[in-house]
Amino acid sequence: MSRPIKRIAICTGGGDAPGLNAVIRAVVLAATNRGWECYGIRDGFNGILFPERYVEGGVIRLTRERVRGIAHLGGTILGSTNRGNPLHFPTRLPDGSMGEMDRSAEILDYFARQELDALVSVGGDGSLTIADALHRKGLRVVGVPKTIDNDLDKTVTTFGFDTAVSFATECLDRLHTTAESHQRVLVVEVMGRYAGWIALHAGIAGNAHAILIPEIPFDLDQVVRQIRARDDDGRLYSLVVVAEGAVPLQGDMEVAAAAEAGHEQRLGGMGEHVAQALQQRSGKEARVVVLGHLLRGGSPTAFDRLAALRFGAAAVRALDQGLSGVMVALAFPNVNYVALADVAGRMKAVPLDSDTIQTARDLGICLGD
Amino acid sequence: MSRPIKRIAICTGGGDAPGLNAVIRAVVLAATNRGWECYGIRDGFNGILFPERYVEGGVIRLTRERVRGIAHLGGTILGSTNRGNPLHFPTRLPDGSMGEMDRSAEILDYFARQELDALVSVGGDGSLTIADALHRKGLRVVGVPKTIDNDLDKTVTTFGFDTAVSFATECLDRLHTTAESHQRVLVVEVMGRYAGWIALHAGIAGNAHAILIPEIPFDLDQVVRQIRARDDDGRLYSLVVVAEGAVPLQGDMEVAAAAEAGHEQRLGGMGEHVAQALQQRSGKEARVVVLGHLLRGGSPTAFDRLAALRFGAAAVRALDQGLSGVMVALAFPNVNYVALADVAGRMKAVPLDSDTIQTARDLGICLGD
Amino acid sequence: MSRPIKRIAICTGGGDAPGLNAVIRAVVLAATNRGWECYGIRDGFNGILFPERYVEGGVIRLTRERVRGIAHLGGTILGSTNRGNPLHFPTRLPDGSMGEMDRSAEILDYFARQELDALVSVGGDGSLTIADALHRKGLRVVGVPKTIDNDLDKTVTTFGFDTAVSFATECLDRLHTTAESHQRVLVVEVMGRYAGWIALHAGIAGNAHAILIPEIPFDLDQVVRQIRARDDDGRLYSLVVVAEGAVPLQGDMEVAAAAEAGHEQRLGGMGEHVAQALQQRSGKEARVVVLGHLLRGGSPTAFDRLAALRFGAAAVRALDQGLSGVMVALAFPNVNYVALADVAGRMKAVPLDSDTIQTARDLGICLGD
Amino acid sequence: MSRPIKRIAICTGGGDAPGLNAVIRAVVLAATNRGWECYGIRDGFNGILFPERYVEGGVIRLTRERVRGIAHLGGTILGSTNRGNPLHFPTRLPDGSMGEMDRSAEILDYFARQELDALVSVGGDGSLTIADALHRKGLRVVGVPKTIDNDLDKTVTTFGFDTAVSFATECLDRLHTTAESHQRVLVVEVMGRYAGWIALHAGIAGNAHAILIPEIPFDLDQVVRQIRARDDDGRLYSLVVVAEGAVPLQGDMEVAAAAEAGHEQRLGGMGEHVAQALQQRSGKEARVVVLGHLLRGGSPTAFDRLAALRFGAAAVRALDQGLSGVMVALAFPNVNYVALADVAGRMKAVPLDSDTIQTARDLGICLGD
Repeated sequence: MSRPIKRIAICTGGGDAPGLNAVIRAVVLAATNRGWECYGIRDGFNGILFPERYVEGGVIRLTRERVRGIAHLGGTILGSTNRGNPLHFPTRLPDGSMGEMDRSAEILDYFARQELDALVSVGGDGSLTIADALHRKGLRVVGVPKTIDNDLDKTVTTFGFDTAVSFATECLDRLHTTAESHQRVLVVEVMGRYAGWIALHAGIAGNAHAILIPEIPFDLDQVVRQIRARDDDGRLYSLVVVAEGAVPLQGDMEVAAAAEAGHEQRLGGMGEHVAQALQQRSGKEARVVVLGHLLRGGSPTAFDRLAALRFGAAAVRALDQGLSGVMVALAFPNVNYVALADVAGRMKAVPLDSDTIQTARDLGICLGD
Repeated sequence: MSRPIKRIAICTGGGDAPGLNAVIRAVVLAATNRGWECYGIRDGFNGILFPERYVEGGVIRLTRERVRGIAHLGGTILGSTNRGNPLHFPTRLPDGSMGEMDRSAEILDYFARQELDALVSVGGDGSLTIADALHRKGLRVVGVPKTIDNDLDKTVTTFGFDTAVSFATECLDRLHTTAESHQRVLVVEVMGRYAGWIALHAGIAGNAHAILIPEIPFDLDQVVRQIRARDDDGRLYSLVVVAEGAVPLQGDMEVAAAAEAGHEQRLGGMGEHVAQALQQRSGKEARVVVLGHLLRGGSPTAFDRLAALRFGAAAVRALDQGLSGVMVALAFPNVNYVALADVAGRMKAVPLDSDTIQTARDLGICLGD
Repeated sequence: MSRPIKRIAICTGGGDAPGLNAVIRAVVLAATNRGWECYGIRDGFNGILFPERYVEGGVIRLTRERVRGIAHLGGTILGSTNRGNPLHFPTRLPDGSMGEMDRSAEILDYFARQELDALVSVGGDGSLTIADALHRKGLRVVGVPKTIDNDLDKTVTTFGFDTAVSFATECLDRLHTTAESHQRVLVVEVMGRYAGWIALHAGIAGNAHAILIPEIPFDLDQVVRQIRARDDDGRLYSLVVVAEGAVPLQGDMEVAAAAEAGHEQRLGGMGEHVAQALQQRSGKEARVVVLGHLLRGGSPTAFDRLAALRFGAAAVRALDQGLSGVMVALAFPNVNYVALADVAGRMKAVPLDSDTIQTARDLGICLGD
Repeated sequence: MSRPIKRIAICTGGGDAPGLNAVIRAVVLAATNRGWECYGIRDGFNGILFPERYVEGGVIRLTRERVRGIAHLGGTILGSTNRGNPLHFPTRLPDGSMGEMDRSAEILDYFARQELDALVSVGGDGSLTIADALHRKGLRVVGVPKTIDNDLDKTVTTFGFDTAVSFATECLDRLHTTAESHQRVLVVEVMGRYAGWIALHAGIAGNAHAILIPEIPFDLDQVVRQIRARDDDGRLYSLVVVAEGAVPLQGDMEVAAAAEAGHEQRLGGMGEHVAQALQQRSGKEARVVVLGHLLRGGSPTAFDRLAALRFGAAAVRALDQGLSGVMVALAFPNVNYVALADVAGRMKAVPLDSDTIQTARDLGICLGD
């Protein structure tokens, strides 16, 4: 059906995630071993849209040598991530105001001119939506899911998440003895704007005493009760994990108002507000630790390296089999393919009836409800 | 159907695995939070069969305090693992020769006398077979799968495996630069008597150049070819991962004979034989590194801690729901239950058509065939 | 003067530090192997001053069994740290106002009554000053230095510091790729109120582009210059390490004022102010990451474990040799003893002519001057 | 004597050690920041002696870009290590037999022709002896000490050793629970042919029960006694750390004979012989784990990175100050310089009266005497 592939390109979009380089390496090796040439687009699609910015070219040849020894390195050799969506690119309009334009034709044109037969697009929801649009416009595209937060639908998990959970768990391990020695409440804020996967998994593995996630609006007084119960038991400290997107119950106006005010005055995220409210209500010293950026970088865990390498190889096999418009996905124990159209714009929250939520309750961890 | 549970016991059997203590902790907390009492049988079933050996008792009360802070510790607080199968217990017969006897009645009797309502049995194939037999004899039993090698059927994975793969991968990372500096072939032997999961996963994640697993009888000359191809490419070193249970193709009599002879004279495992044969055939210096015991211990990874905690909690929920004769299993994203009878005696090998095998080939890793 | 020792006590004071348990273990084993009995005072001196608070006693017997397997655990088995200085203990005076009293007689009396022959006191500047006072009042005392910040005089280093530097370095490693991908300035605040050891050592090892320490008042415009020079070189991100006690040059009123205002309104530490000012002056997005509590806990590195074990053993040997009023100290390659009186109240800053400072300059790292 | 420097070269010799790349980075940055050019000689001195082997040249320009991001990577970007001593280079003589020749003139000539003003030589005893010889022949040379084993004289420690001790300690941590679960004696062989630093430091930090080092000829029956005493105490396992260069007491002919025989038949190192003899004499199962190559590679610890960076910067400062014939050395808290002539050919053993040895005894660790 589709003509044989000779040259492909790969791009990485969105925030940093451990495993990006492993995906790139696998794509390059799997393609090279098939006799294809492989190219990397720098800085999202900027390498194509702004070639004049790059002395050595905005699209670079990726050889076996170029991807040697990069699988365990964090970041991406393709540079920083894209800032503009090429389908809705920020542009100054003739009347001087800011508007947007669709620059996808430039990308399609570049592929045609350079005789690039296909694109492997690694990214999150935004990048995959763009990938789907390019596929609909005729480009052969395979997507690879990237999300630290684990909130992409149709794949059990993806690379980067295990590394983030591992490091957050290590941080919780470190904080236990210090919280205990200082008899404090420590609030640990982790990533997770829309879904509480990191908070829940790291909170359980790291033995937190309360975990607040976006999926369960929290009643802070339940957390205060947990802290007091521990005090009564002679356990004079508590660790509370808070996803950045956790939200107070409507009734808990105080925390909500503080959070809103905080955003205006840059007083910090939800973790800071929870810490302040807990200190006030529990009468114990409370401090916040914001892990934030620390969870995005670093060398990927073996789990994430393997997942990333499997994804990269599977993306090339998909192209080799003539597929387009699909995303590689993890459906343990196998990697399979799902339609990009079924992924874009959907978010995978923690199911409230999952056994992991039940495990937290069985262990006596307060979930704020 | 079943009377309400008030008291349960837990036992751990077989070799060491990171995560055992996390399972114990989850069982104890989930049971205690239901108002049940929880007891731990020491040293497999020895705590029941040989109570005289234990000053403080062969079966100990496990309270919330007793399992505090143990989730991240390797090993098991229930002591060493069982040496005898209580269903076929080694016994000196009246005529002086050695035979075996079924001592399961002593166990059932102990549970009845102590008014213990159920057993959580954590172990590998052997322990789970015993668990199934006790279930058939009327004991309420739930099993929790334990195998470093990942070779238990009906569960995608279990705790301990991720820790083993992570550490093996870290070891491979360490060996790359040394092998390169010294221009050597390094053969790394990992666990995996019947299945090559650790070798395959760590080998891919750790960027090995050849991986030999029990599922694919190896032709050592293919590995020699890989080493030579690398040499020709200016890459003067190679890393070869060998599962301890890897077997040479029938034609490769030399390696097979050396392996057989080696077992008689204690000259080392398959890794050593592969290293010697590679040195001889490739003309390069080759050395073996045997990871063996290093893969069984250590603090469990966050992944394994979470899996172990989920398993422990799920085992208690199963008992609470009146189940017996089942094993908890991981069927991502959920934990579910499978019949012990369907697990016992079955082994999960790496499927030759899995995408992981295909990933290895796509990356250019030699699998010995 | 010194009658043979039969029973000793140990106490730990001040903030948490990785290695405390290793010191305790070494003291207990070295004492026990000499036939001495060993006791642990809980929560600083609270175990003696408030015995009624402890069901199992405020001073507990420490046996070989009690200290098994604790050398690699963070925290201290002797509980939280002391809140009151027994020489100046906060007390409500007869007139209702708060004052202080010297409760050291209660401690001396306790030692006499319980026939405890000596004290090993593990702690920072405050605890060692108390130890010296107790020594002057006739108690046999040996001190063990504890400071994460490495700011105690008369010892090259002590346990806990290497663990803190290691973790801070790992955090910097993680932040490099993320800062690069997002083209940001990341400001990393580490502990160090009076001395910049952690900032300097981790900053160099972790490849920071600027390091601000208390010893060198900083001109923020020098940091802006460094960021711009990197930008001009195509390196669109920068990592700035800031010790919490770093201070702006007098001329830099803006940062100083913000810092002062911040302390009133709880807007964060010096890291936050530096980040805000850098964002404003450099025009680049800047974010702060506060490591704070993360540096106090966790399993000690091998270096810190060994240092802690050597210190504990040396403290017992000192007592065995009839010494009192001394602190064990590291004078590579040996442990030696210095007078407590020579340590108390003195602070060890980074010498401005040290080769480490020179190394930072040689590597092109901006030190803010 | 010393005209201003414009161009320098760096070479690395001997076995792999974590931190080599950090030294290279520091030398390049410190030199470049002085306006000097920096060159790297590949594969020891092979880059000069065998230029025809290198397509891109045997001596490569090292720029700021070339050493970016390498400080935390193991190995050396200058390739494998030297195989031949240029002062005594293996050569086929006219009569066909093998002899040796002094090829140092070729090196001096290369430096003169290329207008290279000085050499930074990073290596162990052998490399430093060569460096001293080149210095005596008129080359400006500064040495940087490299030894995993910590056996170089005149420096308290050097880079690589802390990484090796850390990893060996982590391995011991992992082996504790497994040895306990399986009730075995585990013998862990570590590097240290002439000095027992790694064995002693890791053994203490990792809580070994016996440590055998070259400095103390061992009586294996003392180890058997230790194992039995632990058994009697209900501790049914033991960990024994053995430096590869440990030697049995003359009286212990059996172990010595086995070791000698083993070397002939390639039956393994001293660890294997100790394990076999312990199994025979103690009646317990004993296994050996050989860490060997695992201790040479990997990412350097923060301690080693800092030490390596300080050494590299100090080497350049030394050249800048007109020094030659010196080695940079660590004399805590400072780096200083010692004469190469005072280092070459001397070995730093563990002093038997060091407090570290005494610590081991205080903790009840058997040292085989």
